[in-house]
Amino acid sequence: MAEHNEILLKKIQEQGDLVRKLKAEKESTEKYSYINGYTPSRLDFEVYNNLKNVDLKRYSYVKRWWCHMRSFSNSEITQLPFMKPPDAVKLILNSNQNHDQKIKEEVAKLLALKAQLSNDAPPQKFVLKTPKGTRDYNPQQMAIRNSVLQKIISVFKKHGAECIDTPVFELKEVLTGFMPLLSFKIYDLKDQGGEILSLRYDLTVPLARYLAMNKINNLKRYHIAKVYRRDNPAMTRGRYREFYQCDFDIAGQFDPMVPDAECLKVVTEILDSLDIGKYMLKVNHRCLLDGMFEACGVPAEQFRSTCSTIDKLDKSPWEEVRTEMISEKGVTPEAADRIGEYVRLNGSTELVDTLLQDEKLSKSKSAVEGLQGIKLLLEYCELYGIKDKVLFDLSLARGLDYYTGIIYEAVLTEPIKIGGEEQSVGSIAGGGRYDNLVPCVGISVGVERVFSVLEARLAAGELSVRPSEVDVYVASAQKDFLTTRMRICNELWGAGIKAEQPYKKNPKMLNQLQHCEENGIPLAVILGESELKRGLVKIRNIATRQEDEVPREKLVEELKNRISMLHVNVNGL
Amino acid sequence: MAEHNEILLKKIQEQGDLVRKLKAEKESTEKYSYINGYTPSRLDFEVYNNLKNVDLKRYSYVKRWWCHMRSFSNSEITQLPFMKPPDAVKLILNSNQNHDQKIKEEVAKLLALKAQLSNDAPPQKFVLKTPKGTRDYNPQQMAIRNSVLQKIISVFKKHGAECIDTPVFELKEVLTGFMPLLSFKIYDLKDQGGEILSLRYDLTVPLARYLAMNKINNLKRYHIAKVYRRDNPAMTRGRYREFYQCDFDIAGQFDPMVPDAECLKVVTEILDSLDIGKYMLKVNHRCLLDGMFEACGVPAEQFRSTCSTIDKLDKSPWEEVRTEMISEKGVTPEAADRIGEYVRLNGSTELVDTLLQDEKLSKSKSAVEGLQGIKLLLEYCELYGIKDKVLFDLSLARGLDYYTGIIYEAVLTEPIKIGGEEQSVGSIAGGGRYDNLVPCVGISVGVERVFSVLEARLAAGELSVRPSEVDVYVASAQKDFLTTRMRICNELWGAGIKAEQPYKKNPKMLNQLQHCEENGIPLAVILGESELKRGLVKIRNIATRQEDEVPREKLVEELKNRISMLHVNVNGL
Repeated sequence: MAEHNEILLKKIQEQGDLVRKLKAEKESTEKYSYINGYTPSRLDFEVYNNLKNVDLKRYSYVKRWWCHMRSFSNSEITQLPFMKPPDAVKLILNSNQNHDQKIKEEVAKLLALKAQLSNDAPPQKFVLKTPKGTRDYNPQQMAIRNSVLQKIISVFKKHGAECIDTPVFELKEVLTGFMPLLSFKIYDLKDQGGEILSLRYDLTVPLARYLAMNKINNLKRYHIAKVYRRDNPAMTRGRYREFYQCDFDIAGQFDPMVPDAECLKVVTEILDSLDIGKYMLKVNHRCLLDGMFEACGVPAEQFRSTCSTIDKLDKSPWEEVRTEMISEKGVTPEAADRIGEYVRLNGSTELVDTLLQDEKLSKSKSAVEGLQGIKLLLEYCELYGIKDKVLFDLSLARGLDYYTGIIYEAVLTEPIKIGGEEQSVGSIAGGGRYDNLVPCVGISVGVERVFSVLEARLAAGELSVRPSEVDVYVASAQKDFLTTRMRICNELWGAGIKAEQPYKKNPKMLNQLQHCEENGIPLAVILGESELKRGLVKIRNIATRQEDEVPREKLVEELKNRISMLHVNVNGL
Repeated sequence: MAEHNEILLKKIQEQGDLVRKLKAEKESTEKYSYINGYTPSRLDFEVYNNLKNVDLKRYSYVKRWWCHMRSFSNSEITQLPFMKPPDAVKLILNSNQNHDQKIKEEVAKLLALKAQLSNDAPPQKFVLKTPKGTRDYNPQQMAIRNSVLQKIISVFKKHGAECIDTPVFELKEVLTGFMPLLSFKIYDLKDQGGEILSLRYDLTVPLARYLAMNKINNLKRYHIAKVYRRDNPAMTRGRYREFYQCDFDIAGQFDPMVPDAECLKVVTEILDSLDIGKYMLKVNHRCLLDGMFEACGVPAEQFRSTCSTIDKLDKSPWEEVRTEMISEKGVTPEAADRIGEYVRLNGSTELVDTLLQDEKLSKSKSAVEGLQGIKLLLEYCELYGIKDKVLFDLSLARGLDYYTGIIYEAVLTEPIKIGGEEQSVGSIAGGGRYDNLVPCVGISVGVERVFSVLEARLAAGELSVRPSEVDVYVASAQKDFLTTRMRICNELWGAGIKAEQPYKKNPKMLNQLQHCEENGIPLAVILGESELKRGLVKIRNIATRQEDEVPREKLVEELKNRISMLHVNVNGL
């Protein structure tokens, strides 16, 4: 039966496609009735004069054109240009007649199929789940997400960033054009006729496309949106196939390290405001890495792949990385050992100075350039009051090829305790300079990790969030108060008060109070017959259970006072 | 050359796929080393004892298992269950050795291909555009979008709505399962192995899936997200293939028309706060439509398709709709004419009362049910103070099949004037009750139309927006003030002031002031040598061009005062 339906649905779809195609063809021929686009010509008037006896109702495009033509005066007509070809309109009228007949026939077949479906088809069963590697956000999770994003956005705005957005998919050639080697992790859309599209993999390629397409050289922008990767998901650790990226980039040709240092400042302000633990900002320079490889005797064509192996040092011990370097990347054991000496080093300005004196590195132009860049960056970090949080670390490599200058990564330095258990979070933001397309430096905040930490705290009862922001619940103690409750709600909404009421005519008092407690609604208005007769209503403080009678006409004013008092001391998530 | 690269890229991708497949296979066999999932068995210990002389470094999964096994005491081991089959582990060790060799070979090929690419490949050219029917939002458009959405969200929150979010794609069977006949407009993802996915078409199916999957019966939620339709785009009129939907729904079994009336109230509050023109809320009832068709002699199986024809009455005259009804939907001319009588009618409570007396309609149980629903709704609308904005209109049908009760649509009643030209906007929100899955009533706000009206006003110079929110620009009048500017910025950021500075060492004064004017930055701090020597800095009001000297140590305080004054009278978009 299900199979039968599937065949039927497929037939309906095909038949529908045919009908739509025919209708579209009809439209596309009809459009020629303007002959010369939207500027009428003398030819239009020849045709107009010949059409007086034709029933125009059937041809909506021709009709609009006809009304337009009618609006010209005779003197205006003589000023119109002459145009060819004179046969276009005749062609349309003929082909439309054929088309109309054809459409009618095919529509009849479609209707027959649909009727068959609605007669035979019982509702189908299907699996109710989200796609692999994705998830829904429930209201509590959304409250967390919105609060985190709000904090991040306010830091971005404090630094003058503007916001842009781009489509969720791009032309596949744009994605692979900017990042040729990443195509295997990309979600492709099905070829349904038309362009070949893929879901965005990150927000960097859309930015590069946006800048290039609009010929923009200077932009300080943030972009917060979901990106898509066909990776192996590890959802408990906040690794999804659909996940948020939160990017801040400064594009433009500026003096060295000035925007680069501001990006680090932005990261510290964000991590401070999120308050999820102690952190450290690791920095390195792509030129130093290249210079180091050169000094260690790695051939230039192996720089990239060696670099992506170094990147694994945060998860694997040196021994394993060394093995991979030698067996998979073709680095000689001697070169690998020399690299091993360097990547062990980390420190601050003193280390930069020591390395500038290093026998091998000082001979590499690239290494010296990288070291001088880091030195300047550290100076600027001092001005921005964040130098104590910055660690120059030669093992920081970051996998992506496109970095050309400074690279950074923020890591939490202590495991996070949730429900008594320790959880290691690691990298929480990263970025760097990539000047290949336009000069640009930026950072990306790993908000999914932040969400997953806070969601774990929520689950462990260490955090509470309110998914709704209702301040007042309009309840009634007796039956038949629906319309009174509605009137009061209307009054409260009109005064800008966040309020709701039970949608049932005669709700039970207990259920109403329970709803307030479950949803953290602080105040309830309770309507009762005896109070209303005396011109009073009760206000109940849900937490303290205290009830006070107030005059009906003072209700809004009284509620507003109480709400503003409540919000003074509440420092929600 | 480009072709050569393409072939090379394809080869790299294929080779990469092969390597990843091999690695994944290796992983998937290795996982059997746990034999019984993650609960060790006695069999694990047999294997553990036999592995003492094997070099485990090469088998990361086995190693982890080995460490785990080692942690059990002898008494614990005796309590573990017995398990089969005993040969699994041997198999793994053998196949891993084969695999490792194979992987090594294939990695070598991949490296050779990549090296070839980096040697030959000049950067490729490709078209820079967004996919058909989509667009970017530039910073000004984003400022409009965020402001519009913020206003809408605050109305939703005032009514106690919670927020949810769902993945951008769903299992295709979920989408087509809930809406079998819509599949032709859906964007499918390419089958890349794994699940068959499609981009969401609306936010209603994801809501239905969310409620069903989590067995939720009561939810008042809003969901603002992009949806995807392979329609013919008309971008100048705000019709895109990727567009925002802005949905508010109340799910739950409640008393008739109570949540339904609140949805209408929500729409009026939103349209009032957006202030884009006079509007009207049309309402009708699905039961009344069905009853009307029944009373006019339309067979039940033609209700749906006749209904979707009626829906075209807002764009086409009755004559055209009648023709389509007869020629495409199979309605008899007599029935069509009877329908024509009814769909001409609109009004308020009096019309409901008249129709309740109508000879034909009063015999249809369904029609009477619909009319009584509308009557109750109008009563509640009176309580909510919006009855004057509500029009009961029998021609309102709305295309979608899934409505089962009240249906509504908000339309702007006057064309909007932009740059002297009139633009007709029409429908701006719509919705209704759909009880098929769970009892649910909701509305959807057509924010894209709102965006396009406001963007047209922006283009016509009738509206101005500030893409960045910077309040203070830290400028310098002479050379070599970069570090001083950075220090001051740092101080301002620390005080929560939105500030920026030129990223160039020695920017020109004129360029700095121009930047402030172009970006609507109200204040500039101007550093000069002579002032700083006297312990002073200048604050410039960009609009009035007035400059005042203030003591350096009072700068933050003075700026904060000026900013709070500025924001008092500014009523941005």
